[in-house]
Order: sequence, then C-alpha cells, then structure tokens
Amino acid sequence: MRSDRLGETLLPKRLALPVFASDALSSVAYAPDEILLVLGLAGGAYAASHSWQVTLAVIVVMVVIVASYRQNVHAYPSGGGDYEVANVNLGPRAGLTVASALLVDYVVMVAVSVSSGVHNAATVLPFVRGNEVLLGVGVVVFLTAMNLRGVRESGKAFALPTYLFMLGILGMGVVGIIQHYAGTLAPARSADLTLLPGGGVDEVTGLAAAFLLLRAFSSGCAALTGVEAVSNGVPALRRPKSRNAATTLLLMGVLSVAMLASIVSLSQWTGVKIAEDPATQLVRDGNPVGDEYVQHTAIGQVSEAVFADFHAGVVFVSVVTVLILFLAANTAFNGFPVLGSVLARDGYLPRQLHTRGDRLAFSNGILILAGAAALLVVVFGANVNALLQLYIVGVFVSFTVSQTGMVRHWTRHLRLEPDRAARRRMQRSRAINAVGATLSGTVLLIVIVTKFQHGAQYAVLAMAALFLLMRSIQRHYRRVSQELAIDWDSDKPVLPSHVHAIVCIAKMHKPTMRALSYARASRPSVLEAVTVDVDHDDTQALVAEWERRQIPVTLKVLASPYRQITGPILDYVRSIRSGNPRDVVTVYLPEYVLGRWWEQVLHNHSALRLKARLLFTPGVMVVSVPWQLASSEGAEREWIDQPPIPGSVRGGDA
Amino acid sequence: MRSDRLGETLLPKRLALPVFASDALSSVAYAPDEILLVLGLAGGAYAASHSWQVTLAVIVVMVVIVASYRQNVHAYPSGGGDYEVANVNLGPRAGLTVASALLVDYVVMVAVSVSSGVHNAATVLPFVRGNEVLLGVGVVVFLTAMNLRGVRESGKAFALPTYLFMLGILGMGVVGIIQHYAGTLAPARSADLTLLPGGGVDEVTGLAAAFLLLRAFSSGCAALTGVEAVSNGVPALRRPKSRNAATTLLLMGVLSVAMLASIVSLSQWTGVKIAEDPATQLVRDGNPVGDEYVQHTAIGQVSEAVFADFHAGVVFVSVVTVLILFLAANTAFNGFPVLGSVLARDGYLPRQLHTRGDRLAFSNGILILAGAAALLVVVFGANVNALLQLYIVGVFVSFTVSQTGMVRHWTRHLRLEPDRAARRRMQRSRAINAVGATLSGTVLLIVIVTKFQHGAQYAVLAMAALFLLMRSIQRHYRRVSQELAIDWDSDKPVLPSHVHAIVCIAKMHKPTMRALSYARASRPSVLEAVTVDVDHDDTQALVAEWERRQIPVTLKVLASPYRQITGPILDYVRSIRSGNPRDVVTVYLPEYVLGRWWEQVLHNHSALRLKARLLFTPGVMVVSVPWQLASSEGAEREWIDQPPIPGSVRGGDA
Repeated sequence: MRSDRLGETLLPKRLALPVFASDALSSVAYAPDEILLVLGLAGGAYAASHSWQVTLAVIVVMVVIVASYRQNVHAYPSGGGDYEVANVNLGPRAGLTVASALLVDYVVMVAVSVSSGVHNAATVLPFVRGNEVLLGVGVVVFLTAMNLRGVRESGKAFALPTYLFMLGILGMGVVGIIQHYAGTLAPARSADLTLLPGGGVDEVTGLAAAFLLLRAFSSGCAALTGVEAVSNGVPALRRPKSRNAATTLLLMGVLSVAMLASIVSLSQWTGVKIAEDPATQLVRDGNPVGDEYVQHTAIGQVSEAVFADFHAGVVFVSVVTVLILFLAANTAFNGFPVLGSVLARDGYLPRQLHTRGDRLAFSNGILILAGAAALLVVVFGANVNALLQLYIVGVFVSFTVSQTGMVRHWTRHLRLEPDRAARRRMQRSRAINAVGATLSGTVLLIVIVTKFQHGAQYAVLAMAALFLLMRSIQRHYRRVSQELAIDWDSDKPVLPSHVHAIVCIAKMHKPTMRALSYARASRPSVLEAVTVDVDHDDTQALVAEWERRQIPVTLKVLASPYRQITGPILDYVRSIRSGNPRDVVTVYLPEYVLGRWWEQVLHNHSALRLKARLLFTPGVMVVSVPWQLASSEGAEREWIDQPPIPGSVRGGDA
Repeated sequence: MRSDRLGETLLPKRLALPVFASDALSSVAYAPDEILLVLGLAGGAYAASHSWQVTLAVIVVMVVIVASYRQNVHAYPSGGGDYEVANVNLGPRAGLTVASALLVDYVVMVAVSVSSGVHNAATVLPFVRGNEVLLGVGVVVFLTAMNLRGVRESGKAFALPTYLFMLGILGMGVVGIIQHYAGTLAPARSADLTLLPGGGVDEVTGLAAAFLLLRAFSSGCAALTGVEAVSNGVPALRRPKSRNAATTLLLMGVLSVAMLASIVSLSQWTGVKIAEDPATQLVRDGNPVGDEYVQHTAIGQVSEAVFADFHAGVVFVSVVTVLILFLAANTAFNGFPVLGSVLARDGYLPRQLHTRGDRLAFSNGILILAGAAALLVVVFGANVNALLQLYIVGVFVSFTVSQTGMVRHWTRHLRLEPDRAARRRMQRSRAINAVGATLSGTVLLIVIVTKFQHGAQYAVLAMAALFLLMRSIQRHYRRVSQELAIDWDSDKPVLPSHVHAIVCIAKMHKPTMRALSYARASRPSVLEAVTVDVDHDDTQALVAEWERRQIPVTLKVLASPYRQITGPILDYVRSIRSGNPRDVVTVYLPEYVLGRWWEQVLHNHSALRLKARLLFTPGVMVVSVPWQLASSEGAEREWIDQPPIPGSVRGGDA
C-alpha cells in the first residue's frame, strides 16, 4: 500500500466497532466458563449461588475501565496506545514495561482464542474431540499464511462475523429470558449431574472462600481484554476521531456487559455445570461420569437448552462463536507486528523489524508470534483453562501503568490550563483515570496473587526476560550510535592518497577476467593480480597461461606453506597498509551468482571467508564482482524475496 | 603442519602395525559375540557345536583378503586406496560406488566401535549399564573435540594401547589354553545357564540351518573390516614402502586370526553363552533369568574365567579392549575427512572440503561424521548387534570392486610387460586378486541376503543416496566450469568505458563519511551520493545537514512510495545501466563490523539484502566499506576462525 493512500482507509463507527471490538467481545466465549469452573471447585451449589456476585464484580471493573479509556481517547486523538501513554508520561522504563506485558499477552491471546475456538467447534463437530492440539496449530498456521500473504481483512470482513456473533448471543439471551419467564426453558445437558468439589478445595469458609471468589473474579476479568484496542486505533477512525472512539468504547462496553450477563443468567437457569476435571467431579446417580463424558462450553450448553427444538440455532451460535474467536486471534497478528515496529523504531528491537515490507505485512513479527503461540497451544494441550492462567497479567499491567500515566498527563496539563471550564473537565478526567488506575492496580494484584502458582509466573518471567532483552538491545544501539557520531571539529574526513588494488585470481575463467577488467576500468594507483600458491602444479599452469595470454597486469604469487588461502592474502594486504598507512587497499573478489540455494552451498566459500576476514582490517575495501551464471536468471526475486523480509533502515546504514 | 615437513612423519613397521591395524584388531572385540549370538538363536547346543565351523570360514576369508591386499600394496606403492584402484581401473562409476560404500561404513564403524567399547567398559564399571547411549554419544563428542582441536595421535600414542591389547588378548589366550589342558580352567558366569532358541528360529534343519550358519558367518566377517587401511597408508611407511606394507598386512592377519581363534576356543571351553535376548533366552533351573540379568561380552566373560583368582587381569583386558575400540573409532575420524577431501578434489563433494585447514584437520568432515555416528548410536540405542547389521556391506562392496579392479590392473600391465619373470609374478598376483574378488563377491552376496531385512537395507539405501548426490554435485561443477571457460577467440575482454559510482547514504556518521572518501579516492567518472526517501522528515534533515557541512558530492534523493529501500536503488542502478550499457556501476555500501555474533543480528540487514539483489544485476560491482566498531577489536580470529573452516579453492574462485 502506498504511503499516500493510507489515509483513504478511515473507518466509520459501524465498521470501527467490529474491527476493534472483536477481541473484547470474543472473550465472553470463555469468561463465563472460567467463572463457573473456578467456583465449581467448591461444588455445584457454591458455583450456582456465587456466580452472579463474581460476574457483577467483573461488570463493575468493565464499567470503570471503559470510562477510563474514554478519557485516553479524548486526550490522545492522534492515537495513544498504552505504550505511548506510559512512555510520554512516566518515562521509557514504564513504556518498556507496558511493551513487554503486551507482547507476552498478544502471544497468549492467540493461543487462548484459537484453543477456545477449537473447543467451541467441538459442540457441533464431534470429530474435533481428541484432535484439539493439531487443529489449534492448524488454525495458527492458517492465520499465519493469510497474514504473510498480506491478505488484510477490510473492515467489512470483520463486520459481518462480529455482528452475527452479537445477533447470535443477544438473540439467544432474549429468547432464553422469555422462555425462562414463560417457564418453558429446557434444562442444560449437565443439569441433572451433581458437581462435586475438586482441585484440592475442600473448605469454603473464611479465607479459603474469599480466595476462591477472588480467583474466579480474576479469571472472569478475561472478559476485559481488548478494551485498549480502541485507544490504539483512534487514528483509523473518521472524524471527529475522539468522539467516535469514545462512542465505540461505550457501545463495546454495553454489549460486553449484556452478553456476559445473559450467558451467566442462562447458565444458572438451565443448570449448566462446568468442572475443572469433569471425569471425577461430575456425578450421575452417585457414579462419576468418567472419561467418556464430553464437557461442552457454557455457550454451547446454553444454546442447546434454548434452541432445544431448533438445531439450526445451536449450529449458528457455535459457528459465529468460532468465527469471532479466530477473528480475535487474527487481531493479534496485526497488533503484534505493529507494536514490534514501534519498539524497533525506538531501538528496543532489531531495526529490521521497523521498516514496513512491500505489503505492509511485517513477516518477521508474524512468524515469531505464530511460533510462540503454536508452542503454547502444544505445551498446554490446547487447554483453555490452563492457558488463561498466563493471560490477563499483561493486560492489567498495561491498564494500570497507562491509567497512572493518564493521571500524570492531566496533572501536567492542569498546570498550564487557565480556562476554568477546561480545568473542570480535566479534573473530572483525572479523577476517572485515578479510579481506573487504582482499580486496575487492585485487579492486577488479585490476578497475580490468585494465579501466580497456576501459570501466571511463566507470563511474569517472560515479561521480565523481554524487558531485559529489549533494554540491552537499546543500550547496544545507543553505544554504537555514540561511537559513530561525527565530531565535525576533529573528524575532518581525510582522502586516502593512493588506491592499491588487488584482484584475487584462482583460475583463468570469465569471472576472474571480468574482475580484472572492472578493476582496470577503475584506474587505481597500483593494480596487481594475486594468486596463492596452494598447489605448485596448478600455480605454474596459471602463471604460464597468464604469460601466454599476455594479460597486461602483473600476477603476484603468494607463498602458502600451510596451504591456506585467507592467511597469505591477509598478510599481504597488511604489509601494503603498513608501508603506506594513508593508502586504501581495494580487494576485488569474483563472486558466482547462482539461482538455487543448494548451488550456493557449492560455491563462494573461500570468497566469503576471505571477505569476512578482510572487513576486520582497517583501510580496506572489498569489491564483489558478480558473475551471473545461467541458472541465476529469473531466480532473483524467487529466493531473495520469498518471504519478504522487511529491510531495516535505509541503504548502507542498516 | 607445513607441506614441506609432511615427509618427516614416515612410520617404521613397529609403528605402522598399531597405526593401521587398530581398526582390524579391534573387531575381535565384537566378532566372536556376534557369531555366538546368531548361532544361539538355534539354542546353546547348536552354538557350541557350530561356532568353530563359522570361525574357520571367517579365517579362510581373512587369509584370502590379506593375500589379495598384499598384491595391492605392491602394485600401488604410492598409495592405492580402494577408491583410487576402482577409479583408475574400472572407471569413475566404480570409484564412486566404492566411495559411497566407504563413507557409509566409516559412520557405522564409529557407532559400532564406540557402542562396543561402552559395553566392554560395563564389565568392570557397573554404573555404565543403562547409560550406554549417553556415554556413547559422550565418547563421540570427546573424539570430535580432540580431532577438531587438531590433536593428532602420533604413531606412539597408537602403539601403546594396540600392543597392550595384543598382550592382553594373546596373554589371556595362552594362560587359558594352559589352564584348559591342566584342567583348571574355571567356567564362565553363563556356563550353568541354558540357552533356549529365540528370535523366531525354531527349525535348524535343511535350508533354515544353512541360512543361520551363513548369517553367523556374515556377522563374523566383521572381523575383516580395517584390512584395507594398510593399503591406504602405504605412502606413510618407511622405505621400502611396498615390502613394509606387505609385511604389516601379514602380521596383522596372523594376529587377527590368533586372537579370534583363542577367544572362540576359550568361549567354548568356559561355556560362554551369548543370547540376542538374554531375559527370555537364558534359563536358570527352568526359569528365565529375566530383565535383571546383565550379559557381559565374550571377552569379558572369558577374562573373568581365566583370571578368576586375579581380578587385575580382568580389569586390564577390559581397559585395553575399551581403549582399542575407541582408537579404532578414532581412525575413522582421520579416514573419513581424507576420503572426503579426495572426493572434493574430484568434484564429487563441495570444494571447501578439499583444501586442508591450518592444522590438517578437516573440520567439516569431522563434524558430519560425528553427527551421523551419534545419531546412529541414539537411534539404535548403542546396540552393537543391531548396528552390526548395517556394517560390513560397505567394506565388502569396497573389497569386491577393488579386487576386480586389481585383476584389470594386472591384465593391462601384462600386455606391456616383456620380461618373463615379471610376467609370471604378475600372473600369480592376478590369480590371487581374482580369487580375492570372487570370494569377496560371494561374501558380499551372503551378507546382503542374510542381513537385508535386519538393517543392511538402510546401509544400501544410504549408499545409493550418497552415490546419486555425489554424481549430481559433480555434474553441477562440470556444467559451471564449461559455462565459465574462456573462448579466447570470441571472449575478448572489453574494458568498461566509464565507472559510475554510487554511495548509499542513510545517515551522516563516520561509516558513510569513510565510504564517501574512499569512493572519492577511487576517482570514478561519475560520483553520486544516494539516499532513499522512506521518511520525509529524516530525509529533509539529512539534506539540510549535507548542505550545511558542504559535502562536495551531490546527494540524490530517490522517492520510495512503498517505503522500500532496495527497490528504488535497484531501479536507479538499472536506469544508469540502460542509458550506458558499456558503463559499470559501482555501489558503495558502508558496513558495520562488530565483535559478537548477536551484535551482527542487530545490524547490516538492509546492506546485505541490497547487496544480494545487486549481485543479480549485470554490470555492477558492490563495494563493502567496513567500519570497525570498538567491539570488533581482537574478535576477528575468535568467531571467524573457531572452528577453522577449511577454505575450498583459492581466492576468488571458490
């Protein structure tokens, strides 16, 4: 896409909602299950009586976070992602913390969404059972291929599945509520089962009960992920950007709350039971259901109950749930490389991640994300519950730091703002952000405390490792840049007095002859051909041929008692330099250019080795004179450009 | 080692024997076990009554092969390895067949010797049991490290363990025989066990019996491997080379036969039982011994019986057996890269394998051998019996082809030889080689038929794959060489009329300024600095700085609507070329030189990508102007030379 056309893709609100909200909305596909599952560790009765308490707490947090982010989009109409907000207001260290957290969370999000999607698909496709890991990896590979090929969904491609998902879940909610009050709501398939306590939880009083409630709450907070997506995307919205973004956020919040509430209510009314370990925790007529029992998701069970006489409804809900989950995973494929590019711009990641490739697709970032996510799916066996333990930590780190940054932002602006009405608005915003920061911080603490031993520790470790890695990369770039800076007073560029050219000759063939004539055309002060005497017979044949053909350049034979090639040439170059330190030595190396990678394996080794050593020698230039073999024709684009590696910085620098 | 010092390392006979015979002698450590094991598949009684028949057959083959190879060393005093003999007398196809066979056998030999060594060590070191694979891989790694570091055993280092091994085995033989005839020979630890038939063998009559005997014979022929080592090594012997080599061969044959005979006799007298599956085949008082039973090697059991009252003797035999087996594995580490180098010289393998590195150590070959052998040890669980199924095929392919070649050799020489005495000697040699060829061919057939389904098929497949690979490599080199050959009548080198130089600039810093001044010093016909406009602000800042510093070279800004770097530069270079096809374009690229590999990851990506694309463009030279960063100092040797990669051919060619 051309730079000057980027402006044309601005989104109206009706497309902004599905583009930025698919992530946030999709989490209602697993958040209710997690609440029921954790509470179910204390038994079915406990889960039934407490799931609404926990859901209400999650909804309160949702309302506060949405209100907070509405302040963000007003303050940063040009796009204030959490990383930028933290960077600008709290300094680079805070920015890097947010960045590490978000990078880890993107990876986990892909793994969670894909695994949950596969499990939801199993509601209507029985063959999926037992092949969840394989299919999950398959979906990751498919998304990777799509994104590498640069197939970017337009807003419209996003819009349809998201709106259908809303229709499916909210429609199911309305129908279910009517059925409930009409007394015609069918029971869920697990309604007649008894859910026994499990997972080592036996007492549900005092501290243990509180801890279990907090654990369920922190799992339920998965419903909050993705709220920040809108604030990243403000620049992509139509004007008035800030107003539209705030409206989109509000809509998203309302929809999330409505969907979450209806799924939890219907689960309770239909008697859905979700167990961490169904085989032992679920009991029918006094006997555990055993390994054959297949536990459907909460959405799946509710839809089966609501649409008991209308199977198409079950299929519809299942399909749209799967679609929106894969769509949510796909948003990470856009977000991760964009964040990587921003971090590369700031020197935290290798610079080649910064420049966009030809198709705006950041292949390296996509491949790293896909590899890490596929690994997670395999290691955790596509188990959504296990993967969710690693999730959310990053999002709440990001929420907390960013909201704290916003408080700073308003405080700073308040100092300079004379207008009273504006001041009042800012003070209101600051108060909202302060509440947001406090609440996110509290949730973060709860998440870390309740999940640390269940998997969150790996996420925290990964964040710390990324933080340290990125900091040391940035320090390296800074050191190099200082070393390379020109002091215009002392570093007056000195023109070398002479150019001493050497052409390396191994055989008399076309590539060497071309190197020789190019070297002659460059008219150096001194020009010599040089050969290394590794094999006496070969060398003598070469010298004889050289004389017979009357080549107008002296051929110098370098002795090589140890039968090396690189050593004698290096020594010779150094001896020229030490005699005339203001000279520059130009070494001409013929290089073969071949079309196939395995052909490259068979050539150019000595040349590359020699070049690598020569580059360490000061005052030397190495000239590659290519000879294109027939097989190279047309191969150029093929194996150099596939897949497109985004170049780093411009021209010679990178 | 300097070329002119290679002559000083010639070996006297007393060192030639251990250097070249360790491989052949070491095989008596596993050949008797294999004979007993295969015969034992028909039960203990069958093994006891037939082991001597099989051993005698092996000894006959040994005598014939040694006699044959004595003709080889007389005919090729300058060193006629099987590959050369086949190549010269039967053509390149035969040579390549031998080469493929030998390459595979070197790998198997390392795996077999190391695995057998580890099992022998277990006789006195009980903790080895259960860790055979790990220790086997450890030994391979150790040998690799020794050989990569260029620690080459002098003849003396070889001599001591080999002579101690002879002393140990022959001493044990003499003591045992005396004890036997004095009636004091103790029974082996497995003497009181009953050996049941196993491995699906139930009938031992007619064809089945013959097949089992042939299988035992072909396993016993493992004792013959290594006979060809002397004929490879003739040039390393003191004069008269051929006579000394023939004597060494004879000595080796006599010693092998004596050692093999004494181990088989003593095994029989002490009642040693070797089972393929000890847990079920061995029975004590009517009950199978089960998984706890630990089966010692034949040498181990015999030494325990002979030195029943003298434990130091057991330890001594065990230690020298382990040592000679590891030494034998080590000979492959010398032979494999030498063969690889010869094949690379003839264009069958990548040329970089040909040139010797600084320490005469051919690192690449060593690494390939070690990797393949370690893989075999792991895949076959260090099981000597399983590995032996892959062995010997290669050796007998090599024997057969080489002896057939010798027959041709004598026939050719007989045509030109007028002297009657000489003719008679030649006819005698030819007859011996003909017998050798026939017998080797027969054994090869037996080996293939009896072992094909037990593992030999993998060896044959590997040989075929290597054959095809090497042939296609050679065809590639031949094609390239034809394409590059100069036709001096039509290919008159044309001197380019102008040199148009371009310096790629990304930023104003020391590396770009150096590139600029080097380019200026080369005084091209046209000199331009070029920058790609990826980011408008950066470009404007660069242009302003360029003017402010009054750089005396025009800075050309190339537009980049798609924010690429490589594309615009390539297009510009092509536009220059198309306007003036007789010009040559020189592109100067500043390159960073850094000391650590991970630093390289962070730099030079755009430059390398650009260079790779430019090399495909005719009429272009690419000049790397290095800037050595502080970290590069002293790092040159460190990460370019470790491990030393032998360069391929000289200078620019390779």
